[in-house]
Amino acid sequence: MPIKVNPDLKRSTKEARQLTYYTDGLRAGSRFILSEAITLIESEDQQKRISGLSILDKLYTADASTKRIGISGSPGVGKSTFINYIAGYLASKGEKVAILAIDPASQKTKGSILGDKTRMEEIGSNEMIYIRPSSAKFELGGVADTTKEAIHLCEAAGFDTILIETVGVGQSETAVAQIVDLFCLLVLPGAGDELQGIKRGITELADLVIINKADQSRKELASISQKHYAHSLHLLRPKITNWTPRVLKSSSLEKRGIEKIWKAVETFFEICHESGYFMANRKEQNLNWFQKKFRQLAVEYYLKKEMNLKTFQKLETEIRSDRNNPFFAMKNLYETTFPR
Amino acid sequence: MPIKVNPDLKRSTKEARQLTYYTDGLRAGSRFILSEAITLIESEDQQKRISGLSILDKLYTADASTKRIGISGSPGVGKSTFINYIAGYLASKGEKVAILAIDPASQKTKGSILGDKTRMEEIGSNEMIYIRPSSAKFELGGVADTTKEAIHLCEAAGFDTILIETVGVGQSETAVAQIVDLFCLLVLPGAGDELQGIKRGITELADLVIINKADQSRKELASISQKHYAHSLHLLRPKITNWTPRVLKSSSLEKRGIEKIWKAVETFFEICHESGYFMANRKEQNLNWFQKKFRQLAVEYYLKKEMNLKTFQKLETEIRSDRNNPFFAMKNLYETTFPR
Repeated sequence: MPIKVNPDLKRSTKEARQLTYYTDGLRAGSRFILSEAITLIESEDQQKRISGLSILDKLYTADASTKRIGISGSPGVGKSTFINYIAGYLASKGEKVAILAIDPASQKTKGSILGDKTRMEEIGSNEMIYIRPSSAKFELGGVADTTKEAIHLCEAAGFDTILIETVGVGQSETAVAQIVDLFCLLVLPGAGDELQGIKRGITELADLVIINKADQSRKELASISQKHYAHSLHLLRPKITNWTPRVLKSSSLEKRGIEKIWKAVETFFEICHESGYFMANRKEQNLNWFQKKFRQLAVEYYLKKEMNLKTFQKLETEIRSDRNNPFFAMKNLYETTFPR
Repeated sequence: MPIKVNPDLKRSTKEARQLTYYTDGLRAGSRFILSEAITLIESEDQQKRISGLSILDKLYTADASTKRIGISGSPGVGKSTFINYIAGYLASKGEKVAILAIDPASQKTKGSILGDKTRMEEIGSNEMIYIRPSSAKFELGGVADTTKEAIHLCEAAGFDTILIETVGVGQSETAVAQIVDLFCLLVLPGAGDELQGIKRGITELADLVIINKADQSRKELASISQKHYAHSLHLLRPKITNWTPRVLKSSSLEKRGIEKIWKAVETFFEICHESGYFMANRKEQNLNWFQKKFRQLAVEYYLKKEMNLKTFQKLETEIRSDRNNPFFAMKNLYETTFPR
């Protein structure tokens, strides 16, 4: 007679084994298992995402020794090269660096920031550097952005510095600023002549401004921009006590600037740790993340009911085909969802 | 013996009477009832908001004769004065203008765009102009932004042109661009020297750029900025077929520029109507609105269950007080919401 095994027990044993596979692998610093874990949290399958959350929960520490750095700037400003430059510098000092590149899939900016060949040739084979694209998917519940989860997984795998690369209009910058400790803005020599205009918005987010490509014929222009930015940033109300955003020059080509830049980064982290801003900010970010994911869960919960999904899709189709106006649709949805 | 009245019938009669009160009042162009109706859609009471949707549904037309214009720019650029200048100009031509001012309640920009006295003295008594603040509230379900609803109510009350004033960082600009036909960006003389930097994002949204305060000693500088912007905008991929964003100068002080500006606005609308972009864009915006409101409804639906609300609040408190990490909280929420 075959022995009967409780299916629930069987499942939970399997799940426990799977969890151990991931946590052990990440603790051992396996890049392969790190990639697998990121794939898990990016999955469209709810059970897989819950497994991803179990891993994140299991390995969670309030470890304050890591650095999460957002790097932003318009296409053409030299982000990839600059990031490779930093990553190479840190790796040579024995630090493990992870690069997460977010492509907001904007219709306007078609520049691919991922997987370009030159980049991979330069740093792809470096054992100390891990690169992972993290494309934000737009779906019904909003943007399925799992970059924060990916950061925590990289940290669990022993990466000390996480560089988050982003390009795009305001929305993606704001989103990245909400998951990093330090937000760094790259601009070109010649920038900064006038800061009252439209660009103030994103400049306000910056803790560090880098005048990139400060080399060759652009040297003088870079110094002028540096002065302009420093002056303008000085006028802004400081976001962080005791830290006025710094403006520094960099040349990935001439390999100049990184020592000063990294020293500024370290000073920034010291100041943030001392004032308590660092931990307060990370906690705030955890709360933001939870609230955002909660809203996604609410949408999943609502649409799980077959009838709700059908009503929503029917009304959406009616708007699309001009058979109904959006206010009728919303009124209808309220009345069927909350019958009196 | 008293006559028994079915309470459902009584309620529906009352509701029908209320609906008629609003729709009649709006059709008659009552500014008082318009304000009441906007208050209804901004209410935190679900039933009141549903009543607001009934009004919007009842009065909905795919009327393409109105103009929804978003006006953005940093604090100090002269938005209020410029908007008063346009509104006065249009009112003098016999057009009814509504001004909706959005204050995104940013922690950073403290400038109050609403209710300043000078403004009210200038145009507050003009019968043709309606002004209404529309402050976006931040709450659990996201931003409770009802500006699009307010636009439709103003149109129902016979206002031909709706000017939506906004200030802030990227997020509010993106939100406004999603509910208007034309997005207008105000900058100061001296701006535009360099457009590859951070400001490209918002410039990309602009259909019209106004060099404001182009008067007195700033005249020459204004002309230089105009050239810079015109050149840069020319390089961007056009958002709308046959329309390259125009750059024009304005002086509210010297009352110069409005004729040219309004002519450009009219040309823009003609081109958009001809190409079909106008209606396609409005439909797209209706769909976006519906999807956004749907997500809000899903949150309301989820939190209506007492247990869900309690679990959510408990987990949120635990994160706040460092008793749990956000990944544990989210995993927990998934497991209790979707039990296997």
